[in-house]
Amino acid sequence: MSLIVQKFGGTSVGTIERIKNVAARAIATQQQGHQVVVTVSAMSGETNRLVALVEALTPSYNKREYDVVVAAGEQVSIGLLAIAIEALGGKARSYLGWQIPFVTDAVYSKARIQDIDGEKILKDLADGFIVVVAGFQGVTMEGDVTTLGRGGSDTSAVALAAALKADLCDIYTDVDGVYTTDPRIEPKARKMDRISYDEMLEMASLGAKVLQTRSVELAKNYSVPVRVLSSLEEGTGTLLTVEDPTMEKVLVSAIAFSTNEAKITIIGVPDNPGVAANIFGTLAGANINVDMIIQNASAHHETDMTFTVPKADFQQTMNLLKGSLQAIGARGVTGDTDISKVSAIGVGMRSHSGVAQKMFKALADERINIQMISTSEIKISVVIEAKYTELAVRTLHAAFDLDKGRGDSLGG
Amino acid sequence: MSLIVQKFGGTSVGTIERIKNVAARAIATQQQGHQVVVTVSAMSGETNRLVALVEALTPSYNKREYDVVVAAGEQVSIGLLAIAIEALGGKARSYLGWQIPFVTDAVYSKARIQDIDGEKILKDLADGFIVVVAGFQGVTMEGDVTTLGRGGSDTSAVALAAALKADLCDIYTDVDGVYTTDPRIEPKARKMDRISYDEMLEMASLGAKVLQTRSVELAKNYSVPVRVLSSLEEGTGTLLTVEDPTMEKVLVSAIAFSTNEAKITIIGVPDNPGVAANIFGTLAGANINVDMIIQNASAHHETDMTFTVPKADFQQTMNLLKGSLQAIGARGVTGDTDISKVSAIGVGMRSHSGVAQKMFKALADERINIQMISTSEIKISVVIEAKYTELAVRTLHAAFDLDKGRGDSLGG
Repeated sequence: MSLIVQKFGGTSVGTIERIKNVAARAIATQQQGHQVVVTVSAMSGETNRLVALVEALTPSYNKREYDVVVAAGEQVSIGLLAIAIEALGGKARSYLGWQIPFVTDAVYSKARIQDIDGEKILKDLADGFIVVVAGFQGVTMEGDVTTLGRGGSDTSAVALAAALKADLCDIYTDVDGVYTTDPRIEPKARKMDRISYDEMLEMASLGAKVLQTRSVELAKNYSVPVRVLSSLEEGTGTLLTVEDPTMEKVLVSAIAFSTNEAKITIIGVPDNPGVAANIFGTLAGANINVDMIIQNASAHHETDMTFTVPKADFQQTMNLLKGSLQAIGARGVTGDTDISKVSAIGVGMRSHSGVAQKMFKALADERINIQMISTSEIKISVVIEAKYTELAVRTLHAAFDLDKGRGDSLGG
Repeated sequence: MSLIVQKFGGTSVGTIERIKNVAARAIATQQQGHQVVVTVSAMSGETNRLVALVEALTPSYNKREYDVVVAAGEQVSIGLLAIAIEALGGKARSYLGWQIPFVTDAVYSKARIQDIDGEKILKDLADGFIVVVAGFQGVTMEGDVTTLGRGGSDTSAVALAAALKADLCDIYTDVDGVYTTDPRIEPKARKMDRISYDEMLEMASLGAKVLQTRSVELAKNYSVPVRVLSSLEEGTGTLLTVEDPTMEKVLVSAIAFSTNEAKITIIGVPDNPGVAANIFGTLAGANINVDMIIQNASAHHETDMTFTVPKADFQQTMNLLKGSLQAIGARGVTGDTDISKVSAIGVGMRSHSGVAQKMFKALADERINIQMISTSEIKISVVIEAKYTELAVRTLHAAFDLDKGRGDSLGG
């Protein structure tokens, strides 16, 4: 007998019919001999409706109270799911964040989980209940309601699986797994049976929006076996797991891309200590996330500095920098929103050389110019002109043989 | 400085604009130098929406989970109201039932309050906060969410006022007070400045749906000064209070009526011990509330027994009784839904005779036949043919001089 945590998003509980389907799936899993904990989001559209009510009152709302309002969405869905399970003959009991308790810090609207008490849940499971837990919400040590931020239900599910030492955490979504790249761009993209936590982290933060990044970090830290699979069709999905030797046989596992970034260059930055801290301190103060940063070797005591920011923050960033050019002592600032970032990801890179060279050559063969390069242990990202995005993705997918599967042991 | 509990129903918080109005009123009260606690219901329509979701799943739902779902309505309104108060420059903090805690028994969907801890609220009030408390909901000793049943927010407000030893509990509704009778039937009906708890209890249970009966009982038991007033216009409303000598000067304070009952007569009931218990045990088992019961003096070892039930339960009651006629040993059962109950209410009746005689004579003068009579210390109710309802109400209102006001000290 295994203990399985199942997570269903808002679309999966968006209607009465779908709630019944989720109930049936949980009961079926239990009937296969497993203990089942289900975590759900608010019914689709509900969180947006609640946020709109808050924002209709004031743009600068009290965040403690915001959390009280939006946490109501999951409260409705857990009660409904428990009722649906009982209506199908199962035994169910629901719990809100504070009832577990799911203890978080007091950073309202983006709280972080500090502790989860699994005792009540384990007792109910032993008594034959399917336990339904509200995702997305928690409670501070002082007893205030908190929420984990958008997409927080993934994090709730993984944290719960870690606390309960679950054998598996199944995240049901509207895709049937994680692909070697976006199948809408490369039809030869292949669903992976397995992916390492580190690779998935790079995938998530690079725009393959299957799982919330925090949930993957948590899964990695606690070695929670997480499976991504479809709530609409049967299938084995993609298992997130620790690296194993077969994974290292392949250099690159997936090609990710993002068209949501913009590139900014500050020209003629004086080559003095503290200038970079000054620039990025200004941006951090405005809550602007900077991604790739490149600074060329200095010549004549000045340099050019290029970095990327989310496209949504582009105009604000340009205005901030133009306003502080004098303080920085730089000559000017230019920007470009017509770019995309394409990345090759793979744990195999760690132990192999030549991936960068192969990547750059493949792009060069298609006459795609590389504007920026950034690397980590398991990924290489390049910034290119946006119009070449699809061509670059397909070119790299083919160059690294991603349509052919990862090692013999894993199937296609 | 007084401590005032204000209660606003669903209509008063039904839109963003109205929530802002409630916020403004709470702030204005605080600025007059009072400490303010606000209790609110769910936004109008919201509880119905949530109940409909539950009932779409199954007619026989788990009541623990039902309470989890419907309690979400008040969760939204307290957060929104707290945000609205802060947006207008006030300081506010919201509390859910479990956060107070508002401890109840575990009778889900109609729980009864057992204990309220006022400590957090009193501390916040001392710190200058307007405290916003979710009505309608509580928590069991075991930490399960409960609700108090429809209209429970009145009870929440009064219980909170009792626990906090508040100086006043203002219940804001869509009427400007309690009237001597329904002004739609008798335009001369007069708003009362004061009414005793006992009179209000008779008013409430007789169909003057201003306050939930339980909230009046609670107000009486803890001597909470409750005021009923309009959320739409300025005014002093009606104050519920203990009896005072001026009240006893008038025999009758108000005329109430109900057209929601039906009359049933069981014919030829054997005059044996236990028969009545048998009959009403059957009805209680089906959760049918019996109101007036009349049994004539026995003749020939059998009698006729007449009682009233809610019109909605009439058919079920008839079916139940027809099915058990043989077991009861009665000869037959007849029913009549074309009736109404009209009542004269007044604490002054206690110390005066002649009220019944005056009432019956006034009705007889209008040739209104009395079918049943039932009395308590402070009320006399008669069942009459439904078509005479309005005539009877106006006749009695005039007979007891209710358009003229209660004593000199109270004004008109």
